[in-house]
Amino acid sequence: MNFSSKILEDAVDALASLPGIGRKTALRLALHLVQDNTNKAQRISAALTRLNTDIRKCRVCNNISDHDTCNICSSTSRKSGVLCIVENARDVMAIEDTNQFSGRYHVLGGVISPLDGVGPGDLSIDQLMNRIQNESISELIMAISPTIEGETTIYYISKLLKDSDIKISVIARGVAFGGDLEYADELTLGRSIASRIPYSVQS
Amino acid sequence: MNFSSKILEDAVDALASLPGIGRKTALRLALHLVQDNTNKAQRISAALTRLNTDIRKCRVCNNISDHDTCNICSSTSRKSGVLCIVENARDVMAIEDTNQFSGRYHVLGGVISPLDGVGPGDLSIDQLMNRIQNESISELIMAISPTIEGETTIYYISKLLKDSDIKISVIARGVAFGGDLEYADELTLGRSIASRIPYSVQS
Repeated sequence: MNFSSKILEDAVDALASLPGIGRKTALRLALHLVQDNTNKAQRISAALTRLNTDIRKCRVCNNISDHDTCNICSSTSRKSGVLCIVENARDVMAIEDTNQFSGRYHVLGGVISPLDGVGPGDLSIDQLMNRIQNESISELIMAISPTIEGETTIYYISKLLKDSDIKISVIARGVAFGGDLEYADELTLGRSIASRIPYSVQS
Repeated sequence: MNFSSKILEDAVDALASLPGIGRKTALRLALHLVQDNTNKAQRISAALTRLNTDIRKCRVCNNISDHDTCNICSSTSRKSGVLCIVENARDVMAIEDTNQFSGRYHVLGGVISPLDGVGPGDLSIDQLMNRIQNESISELIMAISPTIEGETTIYYISKLLKDSDIKISVIARGVAFGGDLEYADELTLGRSIASRIPYSVQS
């Protein structure tokens, strides 16, 4: 592309470094910002800068937080004793959006994936073991993606805890609501038959 | 969405204010920036800030520029006498990418569109008339979108110049290369038949 401005070109390069944003989209966004006269570029800049400087990890659960301890860990209304183990902060938000869980979380920061060079030491598993010792945890709910790596991570953590009396559960896997049986893969469909649940008519 | 961080939420709001970026995409981008540890957010911020503070309009042609006069207007290798009239800076880049035009440009900053409240006074038409008086312009090439508003703008400018001896041309309209006749709209196909060009076999 023939840029008439180096500043514009730099902005396009910067925006195109974001995942899923190509150079044509980046150019469209940059030109929008140039033509905008409400200082939108400044507002976006200020907001993005704080992502690098002011956001930290909750020292208890490893979730994204504005403070040393996140809102969920410092809330007194959350049930203690049950921890939901998730891969990342996005998963915490997804589960919070369901309003179905009132316990606390532990964010692993990924899953064990030897091919990507991620071992147990790269995840916050030690931190989890400390929490289990110090807080009175009775149940871990593994809300981890049902992939090979996810299953490996669940297996690894359960093995570490095999001598304890902590209950470990995984979230239910099966055909999604609104999903068509025809399009479900064989493994999912097979498992959802194997782990069928009793159906009762409510009066 | 349940954000665990106000800073993250602000960044998502800021990114979602960009055209074509929804809140889910904005969240994906913001989380990418939080997890990135190469200071990408800072680099993007710095580049975007300059879009508002350092970019200006070329005082001759109104194109986006880093300096008072843009590269094209200040270049001595561009042919003088022919001006290509375009709507916006994006169109200059598109035409420059073709390598088919070696004259200079004039960026109108839009087209006449009464429904959107854009009249001739909102465009750089006065500036264009000044250029025509001061530079020795022999031809205007109207590279303006073939819409009702575009045609109105072309008509308006041609009418202003009807007593001058400046040649006015419009870029060819017709079926696009690689386009299928079947899918061309009737107006385009009709016009491309009316303005057919002689075909000659080159020896």
